[in-house]
Amino acid sequence: MLGAVSSDSSAGASAATPAKANQQAPGFYRYKVGEYQITAVTDGVSTYPIPDGFVTNASKAEISAALAAAYLDPEQLSVPYTPIVVNTGAHLAVIDTGTGEGNFATSKGAAGQFQRNLRAAGFTPEAVDVVIISHFHGDHVNGLLTADGKLAFPNATVMVPEKEWAFWMDDGEMSRAPKGRMEGLFKNNRRVFDALNRKVTPYAWEKDVLPGIKAVGTPGHTPGHTSYVISSGKDQVFVQSDVTNLPALFARNPGWHPAFDQDGVMAEATRRRVYDMVAAERMLIQGFHYPFPGAAYLEKTSSGYREIPRPWMPVV
Amino acid sequence: MLGAVSSDSSAGASAATPAKANQQAPGFYRYKVGEYQITAVTDGVSTYPIPDGFVTNASKAEISAALAAAYLDPEQLSVPYTPIVVNTGAHLAVIDTGTGEGNFATSKGAAGQFQRNLRAAGFTPEAVDVVIISHFHGDHVNGLLTADGKLAFPNATVMVPEKEWAFWMDDGEMSRAPKGRMEGLFKNNRRVFDALNRKVTPYAWEKDVLPGIKAVGTPGHTPGHTSYVISSGKDQVFVQSDVTNLPALFARNPGWHPAFDQDGVMAEATRRRVYDMVAAERMLIQGFHYPFPGAAYLEKTSSGYREIPRPWMPVV
Repeated sequence: MLGAVSSDSSAGASAATPAKANQQAPGFYRYKVGEYQITAVTDGVSTYPIPDGFVTNASKAEISAALAAAYLDPEQLSVPYTPIVVNTGAHLAVIDTGTGEGNFATSKGAAGQFQRNLRAAGFTPEAVDVVIISHFHGDHVNGLLTADGKLAFPNATVMVPEKEWAFWMDDGEMSRAPKGRMEGLFKNNRRVFDALNRKVTPYAWEKDVLPGIKAVGTPGHTPGHTSYVISSGKDQVFVQSDVTNLPALFARNPGWHPAFDQDGVMAEATRRRVYDMVAAERMLIQGFHYPFPGAAYLEKTSSGYREIPRPWMPVV
Repeated sequence: MLGAVSSDSSAGASAATPAKANQQAPGFYRYKVGEYQITAVTDGVSTYPIPDGFVTNASKAEISAALAAAYLDPEQLSVPYTPIVVNTGAHLAVIDTGTGEGNFATSKGAAGQFQRNLRAAGFTPEAVDVVIISHFHGDHVNGLLTADGKLAFPNATVMVPEKEWAFWMDDGEMSRAPKGRMEGLFKNNRRVFDALNRKVTPYAWEKDVLPGIKAVGTPGHTPGHTSYVISSGKDQVFVQSDVTNLPALFARNPGWHPAFDQDGVMAEATRRRVYDMVAAERMLIQGFHYPFPGAAYLEKTSSGYREIPRPWMPVV
């Protein structure tokens, strides 16, 4: 017996939805690596048509086909940015800083979200005592400054790869930089680091930046581009920075040379070396431009690599 | 010139982490299907050792190997639960309800999270005007009640598959149910629906439950197990309910018969039919037991299917 059954279920009152219910969830996600806690904190995403010359050795049609094969929009790129916070117990470290808070208004909220999501995750910028920069591209360094050009992490030591610092701060290199993108990068780095009065701590490869966070040289994308192995107990994660950008394009096609890789041949060699190692050792990786929250495994395929995102756990 | 460089960066003050910074992010995620807004809202996850007889036609060693192949813990299962909220503009509908708020304490916060995450997503249970149930297993129906046994959605019409209602509410079927799990399911369904005074609205397959939400019969898991096609404009998502449980096990091995599929042969036929269709049409699916937030595409492989999670977008 069905008891009282209403037959006019679709005639209910209209559901007035609160305004809050239109916003995306706060973009952070936590997981443990041994005793360390990682919090992936998204800065958001940039979406734009595939630029001319985006990949120096693949056509726009080939790029579109790779996007479609990954069930993505074949006409445009959506590139996420995911800095991480590492709580070692002794230090609260941020690795990379996103596109900068000022970009929130410019992008209409799509990017420049890092400071907001950092606070949503329960952190204050004042509590961050170390900021580690992987390389000197705007989406990694611009978040060192607030929208009004002040220090975004006022109590933090800013640690930078010594090779990266040497390259971008060299006036000779700057004077020889091609007009356009490269010149713009030099100028942006002077803008950012001059605002810090160039108060940084350079670090070397193959050494710990902080206890349990080892810097690993992965050059090619830039001369001093750095990845990290974070270790605690027997757990590890390989923080790959920009060894590849979107995995749907560049993990699947490791031979493709994106225009933003400063030395495409070296970047490809780095990518293959790192991914062969990570795949063979079944290491967890954390990717700055991987789909949020960015933790994945890598499987070697006949033509490249496929990322296997680690499932979201609703508890830490 | 490096300016002032601090060489004792690792000697900074210890970072006292606020208590809030140990909790996982609120478990909701929004996306659009045409004019409709979907919010995936996690109820959490249950983690437990692989039960004896979990798959009737695969050994524990084979299950462990499949978990390891998906980079998951080979010794245990972590099964997530993800109800969704559909805002059609005219209705605020919830599809499935999770393990029940009372399970939050029992599971130490791992599951029974649905009501909390629903509120975090900006919804109130009072604003929900329709609850649609896919089938009568506890992780789908128990959330109809609050921890103290009251109506969790006091203003909602509760819509149930007519075949499911007919089976579980039939006293003859109940009297013939094997002791143990099946008897327990009958008793649980009487407990839940008696608390609702059996006030439900049965719905038929191949018809709209609400405008734009069509019920699709996908029997086998239970006699009245139902999936949905949500359509708005030219966008669609196939809400697969429990056509498969964990994709790492049952999408990759569609011939495996989990013990909780009431009719394993029919469930397999349903799974293959639905997944062949979804893969051929490149339809987005939303999976209740898929990794949160549960939206994915399906690719046919030589031995089964592989899910391609849709990337998280930091904006709706």
